[in-house]
Amino acid sequence: MNNYYSQEHHGPFELINIGALQLEEGSCIPECQLAVAVHGTLNADKTNAILVPTWYSGTSKAMEQIYIGEGRALDPAKYCIIVVNQIGNGLSSSASNTGGSLAGPGFPNVRIGDDVSAQHTLLTEYFGIESLALVLGGSMGAQQTYEWAVRYPDFVKRAAAIAGTARNSEHDFLFSEILIDAITTDPAFRAGLYGSSAAVAAGLKRHAKVWTLMGWSTAFFRAERHKALGFESMQVFVDSFMTNYFAAMDPNNLLTMAWKWQRGDVSRNTGGDLAAALGRIRAKTYVMPISHDQFFTVDDCLSEQKMIPNSEFRPLQSIDGHLGLFGTDTQMLNQLDAHLAELLSSPTH
Amino acid sequence: MNNYYSQEHHGPFELINIGALQLEEGSCIPECQLAVAVHGTLNADKTNAILVPTWYSGTSKAMEQIYIGEGRALDPAKYCIIVVNQIGNGLSSSASNTGGSLAGPGFPNVRIGDDVSAQHTLLTEYFGIESLALVLGGSMGAQQTYEWAVRYPDFVKRAAAIAGTARNSEHDFLFSEILIDAITTDPAFRAGLYGSSAAVAAGLKRHAKVWTLMGWSTAFFRAERHKALGFESMQVFVDSFMTNYFAAMDPNNLLTMAWKWQRGDVSRNTGGDLAAALGRIRAKTYVMPISHDQFFTVDDCLSEQKMIPNSEFRPLQSIDGHLGLFGTDTQMLNQLDAHLAELLSSPTH
Repeated sequence: MNNYYSQEHHGPFELINIGALQLEEGSCIPECQLAVAVHGTLNADKTNAILVPTWYSGTSKAMEQIYIGEGRALDPAKYCIIVVNQIGNGLSSSASNTGGSLAGPGFPNVRIGDDVSAQHTLLTEYFGIESLALVLGGSMGAQQTYEWAVRYPDFVKRAAAIAGTARNSEHDFLFSEILIDAITTDPAFRAGLYGSSAAVAAGLKRHAKVWTLMGWSTAFFRAERHKALGFESMQVFVDSFMTNYFAAMDPNNLLTMAWKWQRGDVSRNTGGDLAAALGRIRAKTYVMPISHDQFFTVDDCLSEQKMIPNSEFRPLQSIDGHLGLFGTDTQMLNQLDAHLAELLSSPTH
Repeated sequence: MNNYYSQEHHGPFELINIGALQLEEGSCIPECQLAVAVHGTLNADKTNAILVPTWYSGTSKAMEQIYIGEGRALDPAKYCIIVVNQIGNGLSSSASNTGGSLAGPGFPNVRIGDDVSAQHTLLTEYFGIESLALVLGGSMGAQQTYEWAVRYPDFVKRAAAIAGTARNSEHDFLFSEILIDAITTDPAFRAGLYGSSAAVAAGLKRHAKVWTLMGWSTAFFRAERHKALGFESMQVFVDSFMTNYFAAMDPNNLLTMAWKWQRGDVSRNTGGDLAAALGRIRAKTYVMPISHDQFFTVDDCLSEQKMIPNSEFRPLQSIDGHLGLFGTDTQMLNQLDAHLAELLSSPTH
């Protein structure tokens, strides 16, 4: 058992068993557990719930530390903020914590739609919630946000998709494939039958390098933001910060998430018609790319925003690029909070 | 011997022996050969020479086919256009064509300055040239162009640096390192002692994937330019066009060029002071990034242009990104020709 995914590092979270989850690809997770962290209290009519799904490699802890807090837009004094860890992230049901035939490389392919379906079961059956004041997420969290808004248009009153798209691009698919290759071509990966994350350290480091290349931006490094964050050179930044961030994670878990990320596509709900899928959305939606994001680019997000009826384009300015999601740019978090506060105060269907 | 680098595929070119080349890193290429393709004729006072160095993986043939021709800015009827293959590219002295202790992985580290020094010897001693009407190059060719203009300010009358920088960025260094890793982590690479390029096919393919990710642009794929070029999907584009482009190249040659590319830096001439180095330039200089280049970015190039006394910023518009250098965007080539014609008609020092 990988200790990285413990309550000690990522808690408190509650493990909630939603029963069997039938997956879009055909197989099933018999006792699907969702790791859930709740901040705040549901009001009497259960209209103040906010759902926050997680991104690739992220956990509920990151969302809590970076986005939630008193005086913030996501204020637990006002809202019941339910952070649900995505399937495969090591906290919810994952390759690293599931036994029997689903353990390790036996863990099935999961789609964004499976997460959203599981979260819907959780919210309706466990929490008894019938609508969400807001769904928001970054990156793969944005993929889940779009899927929610398309699949359950009446349920979702507001949506904020940060640094992510509704349908993944071919370019982004290739980026994820290169991340996957970095891990799977490490001879120590042994088709997923490695002894521990440490055994796959070389592959995980290459994976971290590719993240460094694409995750920040050329402007970030030109402005020496990595040095401002405390690392004396690119080499040190890669070797310590970026490599250490991923080093303890379970490779099979990362692969579950990467496979899912590659195939995020709301148009699966409408026979491949993206405009039709996005046209279904009733939520007041903010589309929020980060200005210097190199893979969920501003233009990719803008082209989708134009297809969403009740939406606004609200880009965030930050040379930190995609990984500004990590909260490295306080000024960007301030922009985000201002947008979210406005969104939360706007009328809905 | 790798047949890819033959006259049949890349000729006609002439092999010119410039004698021993002492390298900046300390070692020496005893009989350094430069592969040179000349288009046009030197005029009587030898003032119509244009030097064209080559980029990573490129050869003189590519420069000829894409940039040189009657009626083009680089017109052999007017100019004597001398295309010199960079050291390590497989045509000039390289790991793949040098015997003895310099063969294969024994080939020494070569710097941009070594190429420029070798080219200077070639032009002065073999051609008897004392000035260049223009030096121009793309990518690593731009690195050599800048090095020429800084190192030999009186020699170079005009310079055009296309999609490249005078000092490589940390971000770009990392990109090149990921390209290197893709090759060297293939178990079949065997520290450079592989039997043939085909043996390292898996590593070369991963290298091609990373090039696909960074070489074009997100806008290129969103606009389905790869399909317009005749490939039905990203997968086909990667598996056929991009993979085939690199498949026959010698891995040790690519590594020689990548090492050199990573360390391009004109400020080596001025103790690390980039402004001082660029301030030396006397050539009328056009700085020409490609709008959608993801690693030699517009902003990186602009910040250097501001330090070059007699320079103009002349960006090229193309969603093809860096690999627009391949000539895939006719409209971009037209822009380039118009800029070069203007540059060639402008007065010089």
